[in-house]
Amino acid sequence: MQTIVLKNGAYIRAGYSIVGPLEGKGPLKDYFDYILKDDTFKEKTFEKSERKMFKNILTGAIEKAGLNIDDVEFFFGGDLLNQIVSSSYTARELGLPFVGLYSACATMAESLALASIFISNGLAKNVVAGTCTHFSSAERQYRFPLELGNQRPPTSQWTITGGGASIVSNVKSNVKVVAVTFGKVVDYGINDVNNMGAAMAPAACDTIMTHLQNVKRSPRDYDFIATGDLGKLGSEILIDLMEYNKMTLGKNYSDCGCMMYDKTERVFMGGSGAGCSASIFNSYLLKKLQSGEFKRVLLVSTGALMSTTTSQQGDTIPGIAHAVELEYVGDDVKIDNKKKWDSVKVKQLAKAGVKE
Amino acid sequence: MQTIVLKNGAYIRAGYSIVGPLEGKGPLKDYFDYILKDDTFKEKTFEKSERKMFKNILTGAIEKAGLNIDDVEFFFGGDLLNQIVSSSYTARELGLPFVGLYSACATMAESLALASIFISNGLAKNVVAGTCTHFSSAERQYRFPLELGNQRPPTSQWTITGGGASIVSNVKSNVKVVAVTFGKVVDYGINDVNNMGAAMAPAACDTIMTHLQNVKRSPRDYDFIATGDLGKLGSEILIDLMEYNKMTLGKNYSDCGCMMYDKTERVFMGGSGAGCSASIFNSYLLKKLQSGEFKRVLLVSTGALMSTTTSQQGDTIPGIAHAVELEYVGDDVKIDNKKKWDSVKVKQLAKAGVKE
Repeated sequence: MQTIVLKNGAYIRAGYSIVGPLEGKGPLKDYFDYILKDDTFKEKTFEKSERKMFKNILTGAIEKAGLNIDDVEFFFGGDLLNQIVSSSYTARELGLPFVGLYSACATMAESLALASIFISNGLAKNVVAGTCTHFSSAERQYRFPLELGNQRPPTSQWTITGGGASIVSNVKSNVKVVAVTFGKVVDYGINDVNNMGAAMAPAACDTIMTHLQNVKRSPRDYDFIATGDLGKLGSEILIDLMEYNKMTLGKNYSDCGCMMYDKTERVFMGGSGAGCSASIFNSYLLKKLQSGEFKRVLLVSTGALMSTTTSQQGDTIPGIAHAVELEYVGDDVKIDNKKKWDSVKVKQLAKAGVKE
Repeated sequence: MQTIVLKNGAYIRAGYSIVGPLEGKGPLKDYFDYILKDDTFKEKTFEKSERKMFKNILTGAIEKAGLNIDDVEFFFGGDLLNQIVSSSYTARELGLPFVGLYSACATMAESLALASIFISNGLAKNVVAGTCTHFSSAERQYRFPLELGNQRPPTSQWTITGGGASIVSNVKSNVKVVAVTFGKVVDYGINDVNNMGAAMAPAACDTIMTHLQNVKRSPRDYDFIATGDLGKLGSEILIDLMEYNKMTLGKNYSDCGCMMYDKTERVFMGGSGAGCSASIFNSYLLKKLQSGEFKRVLLVSTGALMSTTTSQQGDTIPGIAHAVELEYVGDDVKIDNKKKWDSVKVKQLAKAGVKE
């Protein structure tokens, strides 16, 4: 089945996030672990800045979890740079067995999903999953040299500088990964590389519908559903597509791209990049889960899978979305997963005025 | 542990390979499923040729396994093109849930390892794992436009046109995946992009040593140990590195890059590319395993993780190698894995003149 319900525990032991100066002025600034003062991070190239940031994210997460690098058995990660060099070179620095991944901006959910599967099936005790992006390295790789000062169309998004990583562990914590869905590649024929939200929204819809159907829940069962980086336009398209499928995403839905920046910042449709959902998941969402304010969260990172070559050759932009469902299993709700699911169902039915 | 011994069965149900015209003239020509007459595959660009080849490889494998596309639950794959577009666009065509991977030329072993883990842990019944490369798309992405007619230095290798895919299943067949090792990123400071074999050999050594230590075997226990694409020079370096670690790779060792071409073909140090070990594993090695001629095989795909940007910025070339151990479990050896391991040990001790 496309959705894998994790039989045993896969717990988030710690999450760590770093963002750039612009992101550090946004509404979530108090949640991030570290905000760069200077987005070059004192490196000579933006690619090296990105790599240094990723190394700091991973070591930060490992330290926050109270672990040594030797305690971590695998590193699941990827990034947006060609040949995922930020991840590979960071893996070299840390000396961890490396499972290299690529799902564009859906990498956080993909790596978290695989990491959780490894833990749940007893293949490791502690693993790290994460990703990271840098505005300036992404911009010059995918679009134009920054020095050109190109104008940006209104549907464009802003690749965030930042990233995040989670330590997934078999040691019980109060945040548990309960189910993951690996998405299909969906393409509705969008070919405008400045409108990624529209290209990715159909994939997000497909994955959310599949996940909800497989775990037998409705959007109301979640305290928060977060898509990766659809941005303002993309998330509106997603809401419409879901309505078309007779499913309402309510007030508990938002998109990480919309959450990252203040409206006063000129980022058009909002944030994007693999680091977008990575930094927000490992700060805001995880902290809300850890405190028990959110009892159940669905993270749906979204990715646009084109390259500059495919765009130049006239191909349309395929999208993908992977989903990870997490729940709060704090001290006050020490019940096994099966019972918890039942209690949610009862609560849900009670809301609808049905008695059992 | 870096090595994961698969507790339950993960069986290779079928393997399928396609290679280009040059590869189809090599010594393994009779083992490949399909040899292209024209390496453009009647497409307008080499990137589209590669994609078409990959689609044919995957559908070929699915068909050979006697399955429909709907029977396959996940597609594990990646390739060498930026943003692994050959895999993503192929995943779009097939409509399969897609786990996108990148380990450069180590992708076949990485995808096969993850696929086997999914099957062994009961997360799916049938999955497909594969990769594919094209000489001409790789050449113009990583090196120079073909039209320039650049000279090649003697240490260079030839990215093969070709690829392969395996159907991994929980249905018993006579080839079983028994253990996998995810490699660490190793870098001995090579910065010559025309000497990939030297850059990858240390990673191959590290992974092989780790795997042998963890499964408690010596190279003699294998009928065949195949590295991915070290080429002639790289495999000689590997043999030396292993000797330095007091471990002898004997006559049962060869490198897929050395096996692909005849000496009369001007490919310098031999074949390379993710498709190199993918096509040879899914043809020659798998057929020898299926017939029982090989009882135990270690596939060690090797990857160089640099990008053109990192090379231009003066970085050295990190290497990675992932290992997958397979064994023949045909009708005449219907014993469980534990017993088989014991019998191997006995045989090995007997060879050494020790009686138990």
